[in-house]
Amino acid sequence: MNYREESLKKHYEWNGKIEVVSRVPINNSEDLSLAYTPGVAEPCLEINKNYEKSFELTRRNNLVAVVTDGTAVLGLGDIGPESGMPVMEGKCALFKEFGDVDAFPICVRSKDVDEIVRTIYLISGSFGGINLEDIAAPRCFEIEKKLKEICDIPVFHDDQHGTAVIVAAGLLNALKIVNKTIENVKIVINGAGSAGVAITNHLFNMGAKNITLCDIEGILCEDDENLTGVKKYMSTITNRERQIGTLADALNGADVFIGVSAPNLVSEEMVKSMADKPIIFAMANPTPEIMPDAAKKAGAAVVGTGRSDFPNQINNVLAFPGIFRGALDCRAKEINEEMKVAASKAIASLVTDDKLSENYILPTALDKRIGQSVAKAVIEAARKTGAARI
Amino acid sequence: MNYREESLKKHYEWNGKIEVVSRVPINNSEDLSLAYTPGVAEPCLEINKNYEKSFELTRRNNLVAVVTDGTAVLGLGDIGPESGMPVMEGKCALFKEFGDVDAFPICVRSKDVDEIVRTIYLISGSFGGINLEDIAAPRCFEIEKKLKEICDIPVFHDDQHGTAVIVAAGLLNALKIVNKTIENVKIVINGAGSAGVAITNHLFNMGAKNITLCDIEGILCEDDENLTGVKKYMSTITNRERQIGTLADALNGADVFIGVSAPNLVSEEMVKSMADKPIIFAMANPTPEIMPDAAKKAGAAVVGTGRSDFPNQINNVLAFPGIFRGALDCRAKEINEEMKVAASKAIASLVTDDKLSENYILPTALDKRIGQSVAKAVIEAARKTGAARI
Repeated sequence: MNYREESLKKHYEWNGKIEVVSRVPINNSEDLSLAYTPGVAEPCLEINKNYEKSFELTRRNNLVAVVTDGTAVLGLGDIGPESGMPVMEGKCALFKEFGDVDAFPICVRSKDVDEIVRTIYLISGSFGGINLEDIAAPRCFEIEKKLKEICDIPVFHDDQHGTAVIVAAGLLNALKIVNKTIENVKIVINGAGSAGVAITNHLFNMGAKNITLCDIEGILCEDDENLTGVKKYMSTITNRERQIGTLADALNGADVFIGVSAPNLVSEEMVKSMADKPIIFAMANPTPEIMPDAAKKAGAAVVGTGRSDFPNQINNVLAFPGIFRGALDCRAKEINEEMKVAASKAIASLVTDDKLSENYILPTALDKRIGQSVAKAVIEAARKTGAARI
Repeated sequence: MNYREESLKKHYEWNGKIEVVSRVPINNSEDLSLAYTPGVAEPCLEINKNYEKSFELTRRNNLVAVVTDGTAVLGLGDIGPESGMPVMEGKCALFKEFGDVDAFPICVRSKDVDEIVRTIYLISGSFGGINLEDIAAPRCFEIEKKLKEICDIPVFHDDQHGTAVIVAAGLLNALKIVNKTIENVKIVINGAGSAGVAITNHLFNMGAKNITLCDIEGILCEDDENLTGVKKYMSTITNRERQIGTLADALNGADVFIGVSAPNLVSEEMVKSMADKPIIFAMANPTPEIMPDAAKKAGAAVVGTGRSDFPNQINNVLAFPGIFRGALDCRAKEINEEMKVAASKAIASLVTDDKLSENYILPTALDKRIGQSVAKAVIEAARKTGAARI
């Protein structure tokens, strides 16, 4: 099937992929008096007396804004806010299907960090959570940081943290197969954009000790005077040996390759230069850094990609619906590191040892029970760390 | 029934009165590839090529933002953005039930006109229309004016225009009963806030020639040096005789009283001082300017209120769902005066002459067919005036 052509046709038919419906009956004047005037005055006054009641008396308790500025939509780049909306609506549909989370797409017509932050903050009383989506780096880091400082609801950039959570879950299980532990492996991450940076941070939180982060220029090294901002900082917490070199240099002797970069950047030779039983997560979309068959041929023990037509799809949909389900259910003020670690472990644990194999390291993306399992672990972590309101 | 107490109980049970659902099936990886990646890239690119396609390929085609700053919620006043949300959600439920319009509630945490305008503009690419709600005067006038200047979708302040449209519809039919015409009657409007100002303007557009507008100080008169802003302007287009006086003075000899003010401001004596067969629309909520039985006793020919427990309820729900249904269906750039006039006439015409009586001047608010009739008239007017895109 030509998915793009067929998808366009379907989008014309669908007339939008989300819909706002009423949850209350309005069939007689009594219904009207309860859901609207005069009855509705009472819940209004109740919230006025106690702001926290807004999470009980309005849909805030289950509502997440999916926000983009349209600057990094899929692999399409900066296509503009309205053009990003089909992706946002799709994301909202996934939130509902896999987490029973009501998600509403918002595109913001601005590229100014402070203006975007202010806009989202000003409307945040309508929501119980904010999911940032397809916002270009490094703007996305600043927007997320500033929003977290001023919002009293969870702010989560899925391209960063959803990706990181699911990569870590897959890695935990892949490491089991090759009998290695996260503390002892050398990990090379290629791509120092939003996903690469978040994966690096999250894997450290998961226990990793040795991570090398590369971008298109090669290994990030703090001795490089051209590095600034987030990349500069990342170079100081990765590459402790101040190695200077290419991706190929980095991969020499490495146990794990994680690619969130571009097609065909990894050769069979590079895989062959890695340590015994290497793990390859080649997630460039739609064409991976190395095709699974080539990676296998070169000796990879476990290969994952972002695609559904190969084994081991590393797909955010396993993560974000359950993470927000959990955050909403315990009315979390934030989604902290411990909650993300708990989510990774919960997803990994859904593949039992008897099912685990080199071609099955993650549960299938379409299993709608996953959300609840992830949510449970997230709630527990939120309560332990004081992030939960209830 | 104690509506307030019962409503609060129901609101705790409902967990929000609206819900965002998916319109697309997501049951297998093919579904996922069409609604989300990789297929979704194509509708994104299509909108990127032609912005107008956002009205076909996303839910914009049926989606209205119900926006408040929480400063004039019901009769409760400035209770804050989050506290206004039960009303906004109720409004959204009515939009869906009576107009099949998807409406989504947004509260804005600001009281600054320019900041509110900028915020709504920046997110307006997510919607096909903006319904302003429960924003205090005179801020609401400025916000609406500025938004209309910069938005390419309809902006409609329902407290103003929805009220005006339905008052005019009721008045057309009430005038039929007393054998008078709108061009020849003297109309007194009490309350110079958002509703009073909009009713005045709209009745002029409907053909009225003689309107006196009063506020708490009495008749607005351009000789009054204390008047500023909108009230100053309104005084110049009403009260052509530069009459100075109280509401009682204004009512002397008047044919029509329209109250959007406060309880019990009109006495039986004042009604008795009016012209033969006076029409009284006493819409202060929940207690009218004069109770229907008292008005009738004093000689009123037709009495309407805002309440559902008396005949002739003058209820916006007859207007806004159909107006937006029409505006969305013809992809209107605005909701102009002609469209509002058409809506008033369409609503009035739904009461056929054989049914029309002093106790039945407007169709019942719960008749869900009304939206389509109003929409049809609105679309026709939009096309005639060039407001329609399709």
